[in-house]
Amino acid sequence: MMSRVAVVGAGPSGLAQLHAFEQARSKGADVPEVVCFEKQGDWGGLWNYTWRTGLDEFGDPVHGSMYRFLWSNGPKECLEFADYSFEAHFSKPIPSFPPREVLFDYITGRARKSDVRRLIQFNTGVRWIAHDAIRDTFSVTVEALDSGRTRTEEFDYVIVATGHFSVPNLPMYEGFSTFPGRLLHSHDFRDAREFADKNLLLLGSSYSAEDIALQTKKYGASSVAISYRTAPMGFKWPEGIEEVPLLTGVDGSTAHFRDGTSRQVDAIILCTGYQHRFPFIEQSLRLRTKNVLYTPDLYKGVFWVDNPKMIYLGMQDQFYTMTLFDAEAWYARDLVLGRIPLPPRQEMVSDIAAWREREDALAGAFDQIDFQADHIRDLIKDVDYPEFDLDLTRAHFKQWEHHKEESITEYRDRAFSSPCTGNEASIHHTPWWNAMDDSMSTFLDGRR
Amino acid sequence: MMSRVAVVGAGPSGLAQLHAFEQARSKGADVPEVVCFEKQGDWGGLWNYTWRTGLDEFGDPVHGSMYRFLWSNGPKECLEFADYSFEAHFSKPIPSFPPREVLFDYITGRARKSDVRRLIQFNTGVRWIAHDAIRDTFSVTVEALDSGRTRTEEFDYVIVATGHFSVPNLPMYEGFSTFPGRLLHSHDFRDAREFADKNLLLLGSSYSAEDIALQTKKYGASSVAISYRTAPMGFKWPEGIEEVPLLTGVDGSTAHFRDGTSRQVDAIILCTGYQHRFPFIEQSLRLRTKNVLYTPDLYKGVFWVDNPKMIYLGMQDQFYTMTLFDAEAWYARDLVLGRIPLPPRQEMVSDIAAWREREDALAGAFDQIDFQADHIRDLIKDVDYPEFDLDLTRAHFKQWEHHKEESITEYRDRAFSSPCTGNEASIHHTPWWNAMDDSMSTFLDGRR
Repeated sequence: MMSRVAVVGAGPSGLAQLHAFEQARSKGADVPEVVCFEKQGDWGGLWNYTWRTGLDEFGDPVHGSMYRFLWSNGPKECLEFADYSFEAHFSKPIPSFPPREVLFDYITGRARKSDVRRLIQFNTGVRWIAHDAIRDTFSVTVEALDSGRTRTEEFDYVIVATGHFSVPNLPMYEGFSTFPGRLLHSHDFRDAREFADKNLLLLGSSYSAEDIALQTKKYGASSVAISYRTAPMGFKWPEGIEEVPLLTGVDGSTAHFRDGTSRQVDAIILCTGYQHRFPFIEQSLRLRTKNVLYTPDLYKGVFWVDNPKMIYLGMQDQFYTMTLFDAEAWYARDLVLGRIPLPPRQEMVSDIAAWREREDALAGAFDQIDFQADHIRDLIKDVDYPEFDLDLTRAHFKQWEHHKEESITEYRDRAFSSPCTGNEASIHHTPWWNAMDDSMSTFLDGRR
Repeated sequence: MMSRVAVVGAGPSGLAQLHAFEQARSKGADVPEVVCFEKQGDWGGLWNYTWRTGLDEFGDPVHGSMYRFLWSNGPKECLEFADYSFEAHFSKPIPSFPPREVLFDYITGRARKSDVRRLIQFNTGVRWIAHDAIRDTFSVTVEALDSGRTRTEEFDYVIVATGHFSVPNLPMYEGFSTFPGRLLHSHDFRDAREFADKNLLLLGSSYSAEDIALQTKKYGASSVAISYRTAPMGFKWPEGIEEVPLLTGVDGSTAHFRDGTSRQVDAIILCTGYQHRFPFIEQSLRLRTKNVLYTPDLYKGVFWVDNPKMIYLGMQDQFYTMTLFDAEAWYARDLVLGRIPLPPRQEMVSDIAAWREREDALAGAFDQIDFQADHIRDLIKDVDYPEFDLDLTRAHFKQWEHHKEESITEYRDRAFSSPCTGNEASIHHTPWWNAMDDSMSTFLDGRR
């Protein structure tokens, strides 16, 4: 009997997996039955913007953490599909830091081209995944959300591509229960204009805090204080944004900080990161990890060592995104197709341990970039993923880090060259700090 | 082997069920093993206030829809436990419309007294409930949320007491995706002070819209417009609150209504009700119903006709709450204990149909009150629930409806007599419209 593969999620990772199988099929491979379950009504994962927060129309947790006016915070050249360039998709060079709608169009453009939509069951939530040791198969219980019909199907492989920027990590501070203003996690942040003329407090020191501070200020916040736990991000912030020490608690609308200072705040946005959470997977198959570059228990960053037919995509902390997902998806596909053998368990464990040890010794962002590029190279060396200039992307990422240090409001105005075509990006008609309209038509049009 | 009963949820309904079993045990009955799974860290269900919205600390949907400064919107005498009066709990008469903390204290007070906390596994989420037809048992898969450990246990009965005011019903209107202000469901409403000096639009015409309109105005909103679909509530609203026709869409921050009028709004609160949702129950056992007084497919409002060992509590639209839950819990207990036989399936179906037919013919609120009182009487006639003056509570509810018509801001200043003790409630020291402090200490103290 033909083997069956369940893919959970039709975001960038899941679409990469479907595309990888289709590429093999188009070259004549005998591909198993692939069924993708997507709980949203459309594909694109996080890139599929929704105004909803909390729970969706079916009462399930809203997947998306996407907000309006989000522009890529890394150069698009560092996430470019090796087999589907931006220039091919848009029929011309475009700037390096596109807004959400443009990236959504690009990501789903490849999926449209390879015609994988037919493999996806939309509005379908996965409720429980368990392993049947006797049959060595997975039972996957799903619900068709619009009808409420539930059923259990049997699969030989499960590929979890649900992402890890959907379930907020929510620390509790003294006084939160009686804070009179709005108190939310960045997962629920949708529109910066809601915070115009407000004094904001953000907690966190990673990408969410960095970008939401800039967004809210750009769209009219009175002031933004960013509270850090360990160390400030240290960028040269524009007027009205500053970093402050750790919050110790709030008293009414007064926020108190570790250095004894305090300030009045109208709203608090917890940019405190996300949890890897898989409430639909039984314990013995369930990845448990912090947000690291090389996850424990996943061989090649992909295969659950205790049962390598249980596969996870994109579970790493990410410099690289689409390129990493592609590399993982190609590798996972080739395992399923029997093209790549797995080593014995002990060898897999040792391999993971070596990567984990190397990660623990990394000294900073440049090391991390090289580490993840090496992870990608380690995957693509064994598969038929098309050639692209991975070393160029390492250099781009390092350049990008420099640009951010130079000016956090202007780094998105830079242009990079493509690792696929070699061509230089165009320069956007409007500096990002002044670009209030993030629509694809305005972005591509060349005029304001 | 002793039979096993799973109770899902330790809110008012679940606690009523645990208490009912303990009452029987204390009188010498041979009671099965009862295990209650509660996903929150404390009991009380909706009455357990949390500042969190959307997802909880474990990434599960936040159960609570409770907001700060909520006062009972019905007389406490109409929800008084027949075996545990307010006067017994507080050692004195108290006013008829207590704030949340007082009701939480009362509800959990009886549970403390009957010592049912030992039966509850907190921070435990139920992931999947299925029926094993061969063994005629239920397999209940749960997750210990703090450790992530999952396990499946076998039960003879499942009693679902998860409530139905947790999963918001979220209609979509034109322009929601680009509305620049805050847009939330009442499920996520927490603190009225967040909306001080704002112009609000509320959608809905039931208790949430009514009470949140009053709350937000009381705590300083500039204006509140309540948009109705079919008919306005028609109360004599205080200055600054008005009812407007159905929203047709928003354009930026301009809301447009069916009568061609429009207004600028800063925030939109969807008071559009809740869904009966049980994502953790397989289809064949899963209640599907609108918010009605007599649910389809539940004999006595409690037993799933296709498998009466699958039991639901409190799934009705509610005038009566705690009293109804008690009546249902006592009845469910007596079925489990073998004290009450079930009629043949066809008889159950006919009985439900007769109630459903009667409900469909009800003419208004007074009829509905009588209907639900009759439902309660139909349950308690067969069980040993203590005597109380059910007819008095019907009269109270009707009086209360009159009071609301007379003054929507003053009805909570009235006092009612207890159906258990016969004693009159005291009068609160501060009119509700002026009572900004909702703490139990201030409420019980007798002084401001």
